Amino acid sequence: MDLNSEIFSASARRAIDWIIHYFEHTDEYPVLSRVKPGEIKSQLPELPPTLSESFDTILDDFEKIIIPGITHWNHPRFFAYFSITGSYPGIIGEFLSSALNVNAMNWKSSPSATELEEVVLEWFRYMVQLPTTFMGIINDTASVSSLCAIAAAREATAFNIRELGLSGRPDLPQLILYVSEETHSSIERAAMVLGIGQNNVRKISTDAVFRMNTDELEQRIRVDIDNGCKPIGVVATIGTTSTTSIDPVAEIASICRKYNLWLHVDAAYGGPVSILPEKRDYFVGWELADSIVINPHKWMFTPIDCSVLFSRRPDMLKSAFSLVPEYLRTAEQDVVKNYMDYGVALGRRFRALKLWMIIRSYGTNKIQKTLREHLNYAEKFKAKVEEHDDFELMAPVPFSTVVFRLNPNHGKHSLSNDELNSVNERLMNKINATGEVFLSHTKLRGNFSIRLAIGNIKTIEADIDLAWDIILKQAKEFCS
Amino acid sequence: MDLNSEIFSASARRAIDWIIHYFEHTDEYPVLSRVKPGEIKSQLPELPPTLSESFDTILDDFEKIIIPGITHWNHPRFFAYFSITGSYPGIIGEFLSSALNVNAMNWKSSPSATELEEVVLEWFRYMVQLPTTFMGIINDTASVSSLCAIAAAREATAFNIRELGLSGRPDLPQLILYVSEETHSSIERAAMVLGIGQNNVRKISTDAVFRMNTDELEQRIRVDIDNGCKPIGVVATIGTTSTTSIDPVAEIASICRKYNLWLHVDAAYGGPVSILPEKRDYFVGWELADSIVINPHKWMFTPIDCSVLFSRRPDMLKSAFSLVPEYLRTAEQDVVKNYMDYGVALGRRFRALKLWMIIRSYGTNKIQKTLREHLNYAEKFKAKVEEHDDFELMAPVPFSTVVFRLNPNHGKHSLSNDELNSVNERLMNKINATGEVFLSHTKLRGNFSIRLAIGNIKTIEADIDLAWDIILKQAKEFCS
Repeated sequence: MDLNSEIFSASARRAIDWIIHYFEHTDEYPVLSRVKPGEIKSQLPELPPTLSESFDTILDDFEKIIIPGITHWNHPRFFAYFSITGSYPGIIGEFLSSALNVNAMNWKSSPSATELEEVVLEWFRYMVQLPTTFMGIINDTASVSSLCAIAAAREATAFNIRELGLSGRPDLPQLILYVSEETHSSIERAAMVLGIGQNNVRKISTDAVFRMNTDELEQRIRVDIDNGCKPIGVVATIGTTSTTSIDPVAEIASICRKYNLWLHVDAAYGGPVSILPEKRDYFVGWELADSIVINPHKWMFTPIDCSVLFSRRPDMLKSAFSLVPEYLRTAEQDVVKNYMDYGVALGRRFRALKLWMIIRSYGTNKIQKTLREHLNYAEKFKAKVEEHDDFELMAPVPFSTVVFRLNPNHGKHSLSNDELNSVNERLMNKINATGEVFLSHTKLRGNFSIRLAIGNIKTIEADIDLAWDIILKQAKEFCS
Repeated sequence: MDLNSEIFSASARRAIDWIIHYFEHTDEYPVLSRVKPGEIKSQLPELPPTLSESFDTILDDFEKIIIPGITHWNHPRFFAYFSITGSYPGIIGEFLSSALNVNAMNWKSSPSATELEEVVLEWFRYMVQLPTTFMGIINDTASVSSLCAIAAAREATAFNIRELGLSGRPDLPQLILYVSEETHSSIERAAMVLGIGQNNVRKISTDAVFRMNTDELEQRIRVDIDNGCKPIGVVATIGTTSTTSIDPVAEIASICRKYNLWLHVDAAYGGPVSILPEKRDYFVGWELADSIVINPHKWMFTPIDCSVLFSRRPDMLKSAFSLVPEYLRTAEQDVVKNYMDYGVALGRRFRALKLWMIIRSYGTNKIQKTLREHLNYAEKFKAKVEEHDDFELMAPVPFSTVVFRLNPNHGKHSLSNDELNSVNERLMNKINATGEVFLSHTKLRGNFSIRLAIGNIKTIEADIDLAWDIILKQAKEFCS
C-alpha cells in the first residue's frame, strides 16, 4: 500500500531541490518566525483526511503553511540558545537511516548498527582525546545522557536501589547531588525523575567568572555527611549554558575521589572543542570523570538528535538499566554489545550512521578548521563589545558565545539596575523583530544579559559584522 | 565548509535510487544478517580520517560494508519481535525534518513544530477514538512515554516527590506499581529509574489467555495498603509483547478508581487497531485511563522513532517535569504549549512532520485497509497452525501476531517439555538460518514458543504462505 516508487522518487527529488534552495537562501528568511500563536493551527484541517492526498499537495502545504512557522536554526545569524547545526552529510545519513529503519536495541537486530556505533564512538573518543578506558553510547539528548549518568551514580552507592527503590527505606539516607548555580536545568530535572528531589540538589555558588566554588563544594559535602545525608555525585560543566564558563574539573575530581563521589562532566556544548590541541587546557581533569556527555548535534554538524555519553564505568550503567526478558534473549548476548543494556530506551535509532558520514566527509582537519573559525568570530565580536563605550562584556569568552549588555556610556547615564534590565530586554526584542538576527538572553546575578552564540556551519564573518551593525542601530534610541 | 550543493544533490539522488532499488529487492536479502560478531568492525579503520573523503566512497562503503550487517526490518518476511514498518512518506518527512533541524523544545523555537504536533495528535486522537480530554505528546520510544506516565503517577501522590525526592523520608511509605507477568520489561525499567525499585513492581498473574487476573490485583492492593505501602498505579496492556493478550482494562479501571490509582495503558503495539470500528471491543475502558501510549513507529508506517503519549492529566506530567530556567523563558510561554514541559528531554526532534505526511498521504481509509490486511494474514496463518497435526497455537490471536510451537502429532510422540523446548528452539534457529524469514520467540509458562508478528507495509499473503512452507520444511526432521 506504500506510495509507488515513481512518486517517492519524484517527491524525494523535489525535497532535495527544496533543501538546496532553502540552504542557499536561508538568510532571506526572518530568523525568528513571525507567526502569532495559533496562526499555523488555524490553517490546518481539524480532522484527518479519509482519502489519500497527493504528495505534491502535501509538499505544497509544507512550503506554504509549515515553513512560515519555522524558526530557522539553519540561518547563519541564528545566535540564540546554543546555535546548533546540521550539515549535508548528516542529512543524507538520516535519510538512509530512516529508510533502513532498524532498531539498534541489540547486536542481532542489526550488527552494523551496534558495531558502527562502537567504531565511530572510538573515533570520537580518540578525537576528543579521552583515554581508551571510556566507552561511548549514543542517546537522543544531553537530558537523557545526564539522567543515565546520574542513575549510574545512584546505583554505585551500593544501596541496591535498582531492586529496592528509594522509598520506605529507613536504611537509606537522603541522597545528595552537587551542581553549580550555573549548571543546566536538565540536571535538576534528572534529579526529579530519579527520585533525588530538587531540594537535594545543592547549587554551589560560582566565582566572578561563573566557575563552581570548590571550597564551598567541599564544605557542603562535609555538612551533608555530618547531617547523615549521602552525597552521590557532582556535575561539573565545561561550557555552561548561560556564559560557557568552565568549572575547575581537576579540583572537583580530586574532591570526588576523596569522598568517593561520581563525577559527571556536562560538556554537551563545549566538548567538541577538545579536538583542538590549543584548547586542551579547558579539559584538564575531565579524564578523571566517571561520565562525560558531549553532543555532536550541538557543535559538530550533526542533525538533532545525537548525544554521546562516555563512561569509564559502563558496568554501573548496565547495573542501573539492564533487563533482558525472554523475548529479547539472543545466543550472542554474552559476546557482543547490546546497547539497550546501557540506557533508558529499548528502541534506538541508527544514529551512528550520520556521525560516521559526517566525520568521513569532513575529516578531522575540516572539523577543526570550522571550530577555529567559530572561536575566532566570537573573539572578534567580543573585541567589538569591549571597544564600545555603550556596551559591556558580562563574562569571559572561552568558546563561541559572547554574553554582553548595553550599558550606555559605561554606566555614566546612571540607569538603575532595573532600568538597565528593561532597556536590554527591549533592545533584544527589537533586534529579534528585525528578522535579521536571533539572540537570546540569560540573567547573571540579576542582570539581564544578551547572548550571541556562534555554531552554525554557514555562519561567516560578515554575519557577525551585520549582527553588530544591527545591534548598534537598534541600541541608538537607548543611548541618546 | 559544508559539502557543496552539487555533491549533496548527486549524493542524495544516489541515496534515493539506492533506497528504491533496496525497497524493490528487499526480499532478496537474508532477513537476518549473517555476519559474525566483530565482522563489521574489522572492516572499518580504527582511526578517523584526517582529510575529507569523497561522498561516493562513503556511499560505496555504506553499500559494501554496512548493508551486509543489516538485519532487514523492511523485509516483508521480518516477523520477529514486533514487525515495525516505515514507509516512503515517513522517510521524506524525516529527510525534511533533518534538513530543518529545529529543536521543538518550546513554541518560539519553531511555532510550526509545536502547532503541527498539536494538530496531528488531535487527528490521531480522533482516529483512535479517544475523548477530547486527552492531550498528546510525541516521545522517542514507549520506554520513555511509559516512564513519563509513571513519573506523573508518582507525582500525583501528593508527597511532593518532585521537590523532596524519595530517599531519607520517614513520612514516605514504599511506593508500589502493579503490572502483570506479561507486561513489557520497559515498565520494570521505568520503575528502576524512578526509584520505585524492581521489588515494588507487583507482577500479577494472568489467566489462561494471558490477561491480568483482576481479583489478584485487588487483593494485592489491599494487602499492600494493610502493610502500610502506597500503591501508586497500574499498567494494563492492550497487546502484550509475548502474545498480544488484552488485559481487562475496564475492570482494572474501576479498581484504579476505587483505590485512587493512576491507570497507564500500554497500547504501544496494539493501539493503532483502535482505528478499526470492528475492533473497538479491544479498547473498552481505555478512555478511563490516565495515560495511554501508542507507537506510530510500530504499526502505523512511521520510521522509528515516534511514540505518542496521551494523557487526561497533562497537568501531572507538567508537575513532574516542568522547569523553566531564565534562558528558556519566552514572552509567549503562558499562552502557548511548550512541549519541553511535559517530558524528560529538553531537545526534541520535529517528529510531527513525518506523522502528518503519512496520515495525509494514505488517508485513514488506506491505513485501515492495511491494518485489516495484516489482521487477515494473521487469521490465515493461525488457521494453518490449527489445522496441522504437528503444530499448536499457544495463545489467542487478537492482533497480527501468532504464537505457536511444534508439537509433533499433538503430543502423541510423548516428548518431555524440555525436549519440546529444545526442539522448538532448534527449529526456530534453522528457520532463521534460511535467511528467508526471521521469527523470534518467547516463553509461556516455561514453554518455548515461536512468534510470527506481521506488521510490515510490504508483507503480502504470499509471504505468509512462504513462511509456512519454510516452517513445515524445516520441521520435517523433528517429526519423523
